[in-house]
Order: sequence, then C-alpha cells, then structure tokens
Amino acid sequence: MLNRPTTMDPDDGSAGAGLLALPGPFLLFLGDTVSDGYAKTAFGLRDWAPERCVGELALPGASVTTGLPAMSPAAAYDAGARALLIGVATPGGLIPENWLPVLLEALEAGLDLVSGMHARLADLPPLVIAAQQLGRRLVDVRVPPPNIPVATGRKRSGRRLLTVGTDCALGKKYTALAIARGLVARGQDATFRATGQTGIMIAGGGIPIDAVVVDFVSGAAELLSPDAAPAHLDVIEGQGSLFHPAYAAVTLGLLHGSQPDLFVVCHQPGRAHVLGYPDYPVPSIDEVITTTVAMGRLTNPAIRCAGVSLNTAHLSEDQADVLITSQARRLALPVADPLRGGPAFEQLLDACAA
Amino acid sequence: MLNRPTTMDPDDGSAGAGLLALPGPFLLFLGDTVSDGYAKTAFGLRDWAPERCVGELALPGASVTTGLPAMSPAAAYDAGARALLIGVATPGGLIPENWLPVLLEALEAGLDLVSGMHARLADLPPLVIAAQQLGRRLVDVRVPPPNIPVATGRKRSGRRLLTVGTDCALGKKYTALAIARGLVARGQDATFRATGQTGIMIAGGGIPIDAVVVDFVSGAAELLSPDAAPAHLDVIEGQGSLFHPAYAAVTLGLLHGSQPDLFVVCHQPGRAHVLGYPDYPVPSIDEVITTTVAMGRLTNPAIRCAGVSLNTAHLSEDQADVLITSQARRLALPVADPLRGGPAFEQLLDACAA
Repeated sequence: MLNRPTTMDPDDGSAGAGLLALPGPFLLFLGDTVSDGYAKTAFGLRDWAPERCVGELALPGASVTTGLPAMSPAAAYDAGARALLIGVATPGGLIPENWLPVLLEALEAGLDLVSGMHARLADLPPLVIAAQQLGRRLVDVRVPPPNIPVATGRKRSGRRLLTVGTDCALGKKYTALAIARGLVARGQDATFRATGQTGIMIAGGGIPIDAVVVDFVSGAAELLSPDAAPAHLDVIEGQGSLFHPAYAAVTLGLLHGSQPDLFVVCHQPGRAHVLGYPDYPVPSIDEVITTTVAMGRLTNPAIRCAGVSLNTAHLSEDQADVLITSQARRLALPVADPLRGGPAFEQLLDACAA
Repeated sequence: MLNRPTTMDPDDGSAGAGLLALPGPFLLFLGDTVSDGYAKTAFGLRDWAPERCVGELALPGASVTTGLPAMSPAAAYDAGARALLIGVATPGGLIPENWLPVLLEALEAGLDLVSGMHARLADLPPLVIAAQQLGRRLVDVRVPPPNIPVATGRKRSGRRLLTVGTDCALGKKYTALAIARGLVARGQDATFRATGQTGIMIAGGGIPIDAVVVDFVSGAAELLSPDAAPAHLDVIEGQGSLFHPAYAAVTLGLLHGSQPDLFVVCHQPGRAHVLGYPDYPVPSIDEVITTTVAMGRLTNPAIRCAGVSLNTAHLSEDQADVLITSQARRLALPVADPLRGGPAFEQLLDACAA
C-alpha cells in the first residue's frame, strides 16, 4: 500500500480536483436522427433546462425535433448560444463522419462542443486542431475531471438526499431533478447534483460517476456534494442499484461518498427483472430500503428513507392513483410519481424538506 | 443508456479481453532502497514465487537484500531470467532518474521490464524507445487489460473462494496464497487468482481490480475466474472491505463478480480502527460474515463462510494459540493463522476443500 495513489490522476498536477463545468447556453444538435429513442438527451435538456437551450440544429434526413427554433451555428451564437451540444445517441456511440462539417462550422461560429457520446471529441483530430486554432473547448461529459481524491469518510456540513433504485433506468435522475426543483420552488435551498451524462448536461456540471476508477468512486461522490450551509440540501442523482449484478459497486461507492441523510427509492411498477438480466428479479422496495440503510449507515448512521418515487408513465391516471395510495399505506411512507405532481408529490417534498 | 459502453476500452478493438500475463522468470530490482518496508514486493516474490526469482540487483547505497544472488542483467539473462521486476516502492510512486541506466541495461540484456509503481514505464520515453528498438515489453502491472466487459451475472462452472477482510492490509493476499498452496499440496485442483499488483507478480498474471473503471469492476472479477472443471477451486485475492469508507465499492464489485461459494474472513486482532481512518472502527468478524452473505447472495445464493484467518504476526505463539482456539469456539468455525500452519490451518483447509 506504500505507493498506492491518493488521487485518480496525479500525473496531471496542473488541475485541482473539481466538478466538470460546462459552457452554455446550448444549440442542441440532433444529427440525422429519425428515432425519438435516440434523442433522450435533447428532450431532457428541453424539459429540464429550457433556460440553457437556445435552439436546435438537425442535418437533412432527421425527423426528430425538440420544438425549439431551428438555427445555424452562427445564428445560435447571435442568439446567445456558446456551445453546440450533441443531444442524440448513435448505435455504438460513434460520432459519424457526416457530422464533422457542422461540428467544425460550430467551432468557427464561436461555439464550444459538448458531447456525452462514447467516442470522444478529443479523439477526432480535425476537431482538436480546429478547437486549438480557434481557442474553443471540446467537452467530453463522459470523462471524469482529473485528480479525484480517495474518499476521506469525513462527515460534511449541510444535508444530502440520494435517489436509489430497484434497477437502472427507471427514474432516479428525473426524481432528483423534480425534488430539487420542487424544493427550490418552495423557496428552500437545494441543489441538484448530477452523476450521469444527461444530468450533467442539464445541471451544467457534475461528475460521471460510473466512469471513475473504482478506488476513487466514493471520493468522487464526496467531491460532488461538498460542505454546505446547515439547511442546504444537495439532491444527488443515483446510479445503478445495490441489487444489480454488474453495477452495484457504482451504487455503493456513490452511497458511501454521498453520506445521505435521506434517500428516495425509485421503482417502476410491473418491472419483473433487472433490465438485460432475465435471471435477476427486481428486488422489492422494502428490500432496497433495508439494504440501503444497512450499507449507508457506515458513513451516515442517521440515514433514513424519505419516501418512494414510482414511475407510472405506463399507467392511466386512475391506475397510478390507486397504486400510489396503496403503496403509501403499505409502506407508511410518502409515495408519489414526481412527474404527475399533485398532493402525493407535495407530501414527498415535505418529507425531503424535514 | 442507449450508448452506454459494453466494454471498458472498446477503442482498442485489436485485443480480446483477458488477464494480464507477465513475462519471467525475474531478476528482482531493489533500486537504492534502504528500508525493508519499501521492499515488500521483492520479499513477497522471494517467499511465494521462489521458482520465478533468479537473482537480485541493487544500486550502490541500497541496504535491502532478499538473500538471492546478486546479478547483473546479462548474468541474470544467462541464468534464465527474462524480466527485470521492480521489487521496491518509492515515496510518491515515481521512478527515480538514477534508475534509468540500469533499466536500459536490462532491456539491452534481453530482459522485459515489469513494474507495479504508480508512475508508468510506458510514460518514460527513453524506456519506450529502447523497448521498441529491442523488441522488449514494458509491463505496468497497475494498468488493467483492455476490453473488460460489463458483468453478465451468469453462474459459472467450478468453485470459488474469496478472501474478505475487516480492513485493508491485514492478510487477504497471503491467506489466499496459503490456502491455494495448501490445497495444491494435498493434490487438489486449486488456482490462486490475483487482484493486486504484488499478487499479480507472484501469480504471473491477474487483474489489478482497484484500477478498473467502476462500471466494469464486476466484469473484471468475472473474467478473472472463468468457467472451470466442477471440482476446481479458484482462490481469489480479496481487496478492501465492505466497511471501508473509501474502498467498499471495490470489495462489493469483486464479491459480485467472483460469485464465491465460500469466503474466508481475514482479521488482525487488536486493530481498532480502519487504517488511516481513525473515526471508523474495524467491524467485528461476525458483522463481516453477516454482511458478506447478505450482499454476496445476489450472485451466489449458496455463499457461506468457510472460516477465519487471523494475522497474529504481532503475538507470541502461545498468545496466538489461545486466541485462535477461543475464536474458533466462539464462532463455531475453523480459525487459523495460515502463516503459522499447524492443525488449525489444516482444519481451515478441510473447510475450504469441502
């Protein structure tokens, strides 16, 4: 252990540890995408960060639209945009050749580039050369910031809430966004803390927690929600699940580093198996509460469940109401679908503010 | 999730996923080290892989020795060595300038270089150029192999044992080595699987699990102990602790990917606090057993504790015997100090073979 590293990337001694910080506002780039499913990032930005979205730009052949005004890079710059953000995914995560001309045009128009694609902007020489010549930034949101420290385990000031889940991809990001927005609307001091690429784009900063080397994952979570005023609440976007056969380490590292006082369990009623893992049943909400408390109390002995967020997008309003009411009674906890709002969500917010 | 990567390093499409595989036998390089504490790697290799160690090489001023014959790189090559292995650590993990001449001499003598230092051989241009010209390999043991996949959670054939601990740095590697060696000496089919740099050097291969990106840590553990004959036992070197405020994610990812049938809890009697974390008490052996079963059963519902390994290096033989006997009675499990051997260790081996 004598020469165990104490930060994730100490070779780069130039930069202090910190969160990614994104340029903006954005021109949303939609490529030549024809399927809404590949444009979740653009829709997320339109819905959750409209004040950071100036317009959209699509290539010929695209059929997806966010409804924002179509703009050239130069027109977007004149309208206040300072970065072109790639708002779509591609099969395999590559950046297609035919996108390069418009990306170069954006750099020339004065826009930085922001991408959450698997392929990195920084690995495309034409973009690197143009960005250097023009003094623009290429921001790959999947790349963690340098010099992430090993976690200290030190209790920090301020309050923290983490969303956890019975599986991946069922609403942990949107639940955290809705809770932070709801509390701020009530005049409370709350900040959404992003741990995934879309969340980082919406928040304008954060740490892509699942791209961090495992020795530093709890340190990254500590960095993400620093000391704060006693009444301040960081609402931290959860990742994975403690019951996921591949990603539980992400979840535990985030849980330990976040030291949450409160957590909200996110669940999609009717999902039987872990996405992509038919041999692994989705755990019950009760199991997730028990295990999150059991593991989370290591770094915060006062951890407790504030309530449950149900993703009822596939249910009718009546079905959702019945389910929310019955689960709230069964668990003796606030239960709501944050995207439906209403009195149930207000009760969940009350519990998060308590 | 649409463009979530499915392997850790898909840009490098040339190499299939696999374990690091080290060249050897070794000439152990001791630098100019004057403190035994910095030479643990060299001592570990001498003690656990003597058949892979041809001799040692120290610079003027060094006072550390493994007791192996002193050799020049050329003499070591003639004696069968095929790699110079850096067997010492330095404060900060850097490779000192004054080591370069002898490292270059080793390359010229026909030896590859193997290092577990934090600073990478591959980042030192004189070594890179010489290795290219001479057709030698520079092996940085801290660097994971490319293309580690996301874990599948699929149950594998063969049997697995994982060492877990109440803390870091108290005997998980040596316990796994002693169990694997003890079983092989009994004629059983067992393999030590290394997850840390010294273990990898001793075994001649493995995966540095704590250097893996967290999304892939369980996938790396799956790769490390592949399908095997039904009676074969992989004895997997544990890392960290589920009760460590910084490294529990490493431990959980390794636990889930290893899918152990059996685990052995490693503990150092008298250690009160987690090393370097005075606010975190070391958990009891009982707590570690309970939590390891609770978390490990996700990927192997049959997981159970085979016994306990106590590191009693700081106790007299009598003190150790009394402690081992009383703990075995209290826990109703085999308890032994593998480095002391004896009947207690034979009972622990019986349990591991069962």
